[in-house]
Amino acid sequence: MESLSAILCGKESIKMENRLVQEPGPGEVQLSMRNVGLCGSDVYIFKNGSHGTHRIGGSGILGHEASAVVTKVGEGVSRLKVGDRVALEPGEACNKCKNCLKDVRNMCLTEKPFDGNTSKYDGYITRCKLMRADYCYKLPDNVTDEEGALMEPLAVAVQDCRRAGVEAGRSVLVLGAGTIGLLCMMTAKAMGATNVCITDVVEERLKLAKQLGATHTLLTASPDMDSTVQEIHTLMGEMPDITIECTGNIFCQRLAIMSTIPGGCVAIVGYGAEEVTLPLAVMCQRQIDLRPSWRYDKHCYPIAIDLVASGKINVKPLVTHRFSIEQTNDAIHVAASRKPGVLKCMVKCNE
Amino acid sequence: MESLSAILCGKESIKMENRLVQEPGPGEVQLSMRNVGLCGSDVYIFKNGSHGTHRIGGSGILGHEASAVVTKVGEGVSRLKVGDRVALEPGEACNKCKNCLKDVRNMCLTEKPFDGNTSKYDGYITRCKLMRADYCYKLPDNVTDEEGALMEPLAVAVQDCRRAGVEAGRSVLVLGAGTIGLLCMMTAKAMGATNVCITDVVEERLKLAKQLGATHTLLTASPDMDSTVQEIHTLMGEMPDITIECTGNIFCQRLAIMSTIPGGCVAIVGYGAEEVTLPLAVMCQRQIDLRPSWRYDKHCYPIAIDLVASGKINVKPLVTHRFSIEQTNDAIHVAASRKPGVLKCMVKCNE
Amino acid sequence: MESLSAILCGKESIKMENRLVQEPGPGEVQLSMRNVGLCGSDVYIFKNGSHGTHRIGGSGILGHEASAVVTKVGEGVSRLKVGDRVALEPGEACNKCKNCLKDVRNMCLTEKPFDGNTSKYDGYITRCKLMRADYCYKLPDNVTDEEGALMEPLAVAVQDCRRAGVEAGRSVLVLGAGTIGLLCMMTAKAMGATNVCITDVVEERLKLAKQLGATHTLLTASPDMDSTVQEIHTLMGEMPDITIECTGNIFCQRLAIMSTIPGGCVAIVGYGAEEVTLPLAVMCQRQIDLRPSWRYDKHCYPIAIDLVASGKINVKPLVTHRFSIEQTNDAIHVAASRKPGVLKCMVKCNE
Amino acid sequence: MESLSAILCGKESIKMENRLVQEPGPGEVQLSMRNVGLCGSDVYIFKNGSHGTHRIGGSGILGHEASAVVTKVGEGVSRLKVGDRVALEPGEACNKCKNCLKDVRNMCLTEKPFDGNTSKYDGYITRCKLMRADYCYKLPDNVTDEEGALMEPLAVAVQDCRRAGVEAGRSVLVLGAGTIGLLCMMTAKAMGATNVCITDVVEERLKLAKQLGATHTLLTASPDMDSTVQEIHTLMGEMPDITIECTGNIFCQRLAIMSTIPGGCVAIVGYGAEEVTLPLAVMCQRQIDLRPSWRYDKHCYPIAIDLVASGKINVKPLVTHRFSIEQTNDAIHVAASRKPGVLKCMVKCNE
Repeated sequence: MESLSAILCGKESIKMENRLVQEPGPGEVQLSMRNVGLCGSDVYIFKNGSHGTHRIGGSGILGHEASAVVTKVGEGVSRLKVGDRVALEPGEACNKCKNCLKDVRNMCLTEKPFDGNTSKYDGYITRCKLMRADYCYKLPDNVTDEEGALMEPLAVAVQDCRRAGVEAGRSVLVLGAGTIGLLCMMTAKAMGATNVCITDVVEERLKLAKQLGATHTLLTASPDMDSTVQEIHTLMGEMPDITIECTGNIFCQRLAIMSTIPGGCVAIVGYGAEEVTLPLAVMCQRQIDLRPSWRYDKHCYPIAIDLVASGKINVKPLVTHRFSIEQTNDAIHVAASRKPGVLKCMVKCNE
Repeated sequence: MESLSAILCGKESIKMENRLVQEPGPGEVQLSMRNVGLCGSDVYIFKNGSHGTHRIGGSGILGHEASAVVTKVGEGVSRLKVGDRVALEPGEACNKCKNCLKDVRNMCLTEKPFDGNTSKYDGYITRCKLMRADYCYKLPDNVTDEEGALMEPLAVAVQDCRRAGVEAGRSVLVLGAGTIGLLCMMTAKAMGATNVCITDVVEERLKLAKQLGATHTLLTASPDMDSTVQEIHTLMGEMPDITIECTGNIFCQRLAIMSTIPGGCVAIVGYGAEEVTLPLAVMCQRQIDLRPSWRYDKHCYPIAIDLVASGKINVKPLVTHRFSIEQTNDAIHVAASRKPGVLKCMVKCNE
Repeated sequence: MESLSAILCGKESIKMENRLVQEPGPGEVQLSMRNVGLCGSDVYIFKNGSHGTHRIGGSGILGHEASAVVTKVGEGVSRLKVGDRVALEPGEACNKCKNCLKDVRNMCLTEKPFDGNTSKYDGYITRCKLMRADYCYKLPDNVTDEEGALMEPLAVAVQDCRRAGVEAGRSVLVLGAGTIGLLCMMTAKAMGATNVCITDVVEERLKLAKQLGATHTLLTASPDMDSTVQEIHTLMGEMPDITIECTGNIFCQRLAIMSTIPGGCVAIVGYGAEEVTLPLAVMCQRQIDLRPSWRYDKHCYPIAIDLVASGKINVKPLVTHRFSIEQTNDAIHVAASRKPGVLKCMVKCNE
Repeated sequence: MESLSAILCGKESIKMENRLVQEPGPGEVQLSMRNVGLCGSDVYIFKNGSHGTHRIGGSGILGHEASAVVTKVGEGVSRLKVGDRVALEPGEACNKCKNCLKDVRNMCLTEKPFDGNTSKYDGYITRCKLMRADYCYKLPDNVTDEEGALMEPLAVAVQDCRRAGVEAGRSVLVLGAGTIGLLCMMTAKAMGATNVCITDVVEERLKLAKQLGATHTLLTASPDMDSTVQEIHTLMGEMPDITIECTGNIFCQRLAIMSTIPGGCVAIVGYGAEEVTLPLAVMCQRQIDLRPSWRYDKHCYPIAIDLVASGKINVKPLVTHRFSIEQTNDAIHVAASRKPGVLKCMVKCNE
């Protein structure tokens, strides 16, 4: 079967092409794709041609945040049936290496395919696709396809908050009110944090953050470190126990360390410069942990789906722009524009 | 200064008496008492003359769930000032024994005073009282005196949920919809649990549970274990990861074990029979932890106050009856009546 | 190929029979069996015809503690090759259910096969056998075949110590100096515990315990609870933080609870009566956790092998009797005799 | 009473002076000082005049690693008596601030006195001294005074290993075989690690490391990152789960990150440059935690004493040079020489 697909074929270049989709093999399902969200890393690689150690492959299909409907079921698949609506977890683990046995499945030591632009595995902006059934999570009836596509970034937020130790009684500072920052803020609140402050350089995003439940918001316009730290402490009424850095910006990386309470934790989500100069002596004297996160371990998708299905987290307001699959090129340009009003751009693969 | 006080002076006998209150010593504060809630253990000792290894003392003032206002401040007290409204944590730890250093302050190995009926330390139903300043927690402006008195049972619920490992992604069954059960249910939800079922034998309490946020409620009328377990699993759509037993009832203690998912945890809050026959072989084969809790460690009061101040937990509907200090005898009889509509009876010490 | 096998075919009845062994399928290996140890649960089912909810199957091959040599390798097996010496982990998990994703693989919710007497899967006292490659752990050169067969009970001890929270700074009481008790004692020491006391009713076993590193040993001859508790506390110079109950005996189960420090933990390993009366009120007031363990999660075999290969634990003295495969009937009778000098009986499948 | 004391009175300047010692107040003890070890931070501040945010005070007595004998006991001190031999924990916590309640006592948020050169509190190289009794830990009979003075750096190692998550089944790389590195290596082994590799640029130190139990030792002579990482992995037979950086050297800080298994942890002990450029993108993609430690929380001293008293750790070979109190100036110069054969220089205050 042929499937119209959005191919990232070079720096700032996308073309639409038909790709052949096979029948599902053992343990696989065939999917009719629904929504695919565009992510900062998609934009990054679109503009730079690489992301971390990943480089654009010759034929990579774009997109890794998706929902879909099961259309065919391969041999041995018992947990899914035709018609099931699912969220897709990109990435695949071997279940056998030291890290899989240690439950750091996201750090699987075998060759780690990750569906999307840069891997040998295809991404998700396509009409139809094969997928490992174990990485398709059934969506409850009250979770929409569009929400389903947001399970991927929400799983990132769940991973970050879990690794940072968010729980009732912890105060949390989130730097950056983009999609991931807003999701981290909402997740922190859902996990019991009551004092959650979020910062950004765009007023409009902070307004949305407030609507979505942030206890405090702060416009971080000043380049002065000390006064910004002071402002945060005054606003929150305390030093945050945990700071979640979602910008990748060097000022914010340092701000995270300088703002956090001695003995606290800085979680790093935002991917920025390869090399960063950090105040290590301060980190030592204040015993501040730096915990970067990468994607999500196997606990995150079920938790993400629960949080949305139960109404604890409302992800709907994050979708600001919608496109047909044929408009994928426009979609990535809007996503790349970084305009204040742009949060999640959603591509509809079969509408 | 003289202070009118409610003295539990024998089985089923309370008298009102004036007690002398001294000036605050170093590290102490003098308090004008506000609200004092009556608890199941107060009722238990009122009716039985003892609770666990505790026996009624000769001159114990009743009550250990209280809010108050600071009226005088002793030497060296820097964190409180006259006029501060506070919640009181009964109990005192030495900060030096092995358990205090291990952070099980509630299991302090030195003589463990616990303010209330049975200890050498006076309880709280009195007009005026001295108190260790370190065990007085300042209430924010938006937490009322009546809510302040509920911080003690809420701290119990926080302790139970923390020890049981409640977090986002865990399903929770609460047995018993009395004050503690309802607080455990609300706390579990505030800590991120989305699927929380609560049971009781009284329909009226389940209605309130539903209003306060329970995902599911179940009237456990049948004495049949297997069908009750089955009903719970069907209602929840899964076996609960965690069961919090709040009744002290032998059927429920066994139900907790039989309902919980293999590998799960049963938290025991309800105090019942001294000796209980348990299905230990099933607990082994299913690897089910039994984790009893006793009062609260030092993390619980600040978390309890946060959860109420932030609006995550609404404790107000739990107060069903109010009394003046002179009516303490009536109050304990209403509390002891165990009528469906009775939850928390509150004594107003200075109104 | 035919393989001489020891079949448990009814209560107290074993016969030797040839069984057909197939070629290894995908993900499987064919093994030439080496040593198989006899365990208390083997003896239990030999004498009683059942163990927990397990009943003797029609054709079950006895034995679940084994080492072997790989003789053939099925398709897709890359981590093992012909000639590799391995320890075998009985049991198989689905890797997909809620418990496998929660990392309680030993509590896998799908039908849980466990190699041995009572399961549909054959046990290990046989000349030759097929096995899932993922459950075969390569033995280093300096670990003998006999030691390899002891990795199964050592994995049990590792699981118990991990779940009980053994670490440097924790004092540990082990009740019962049989194979599992001695392994728990050695594992607790290897994990950093410095004050480890072990008890038994047999002097001879305590002598061995002392040689193997126990800090203190106690002959528990008296049926008096209070004086036994007192003796333990005096001998250890403190109340143990953790007690590991390895006897299944009702007196010891209660002794475990009564001896442990308030706020401490009792791990239950020994399988005894189905129903046990426990002092639940004491457990509540002292906040003592009861943590039963069942087999081992996926972390345990690698740790067990490490501890022996590094010389931290010396399991050799535990093997007291050796038999050829043809003498399996004698072996189980010796194991069942419970004579003081009998610890591990080892069956040599190919010597 | 007058007490001869070693005063650090400026950069590279020490003078001996008599200081007045008062009678012990409530909760205090008077001590006759025994051994005081010289630490890298003493040397650092001797040479640089500051350490972190600390500056030399006007009248600071040098030294913070000490043992002593109790000579007088103040009011309310019940846990110590005259003649008790003790190890001293410098630093004092308020037990009331948010961090003390969170059990990060070493990050106490009130003014944090730390006995020694740079604080308003006097250090330990003196004949006689007052001390808070709660911070004096009784030494068992089989722990010598000299070993007692080593409890301070051993407590640092215990803190690092605990924060890094060392346990049975974890492989550990230690960078730097000075006193702290050797203590971290021995502590990691005592906590159950079996594969522990230690590196240094001095062959002689690696020989001692081998004698003290290191599984592997590596002379890191080459400035080439990739080949050094490769050498470590080959030698250990795996990527280390945990790396403990004890040098403060920029090459080693980066080596720690590059050597550690994805999903692993780098503990930072060595204090070096204020600002350090780190490969943050690699840390993100490999999800490597950076956990600096500062001193020790309240669990560390008792564990340190246990590990030495039980014979699990042998600290004796670390003392390479001994001096009288009058020779303190020589002692600090030898310590500062950084010659291969110099590890711990010990000052005898009353011999």
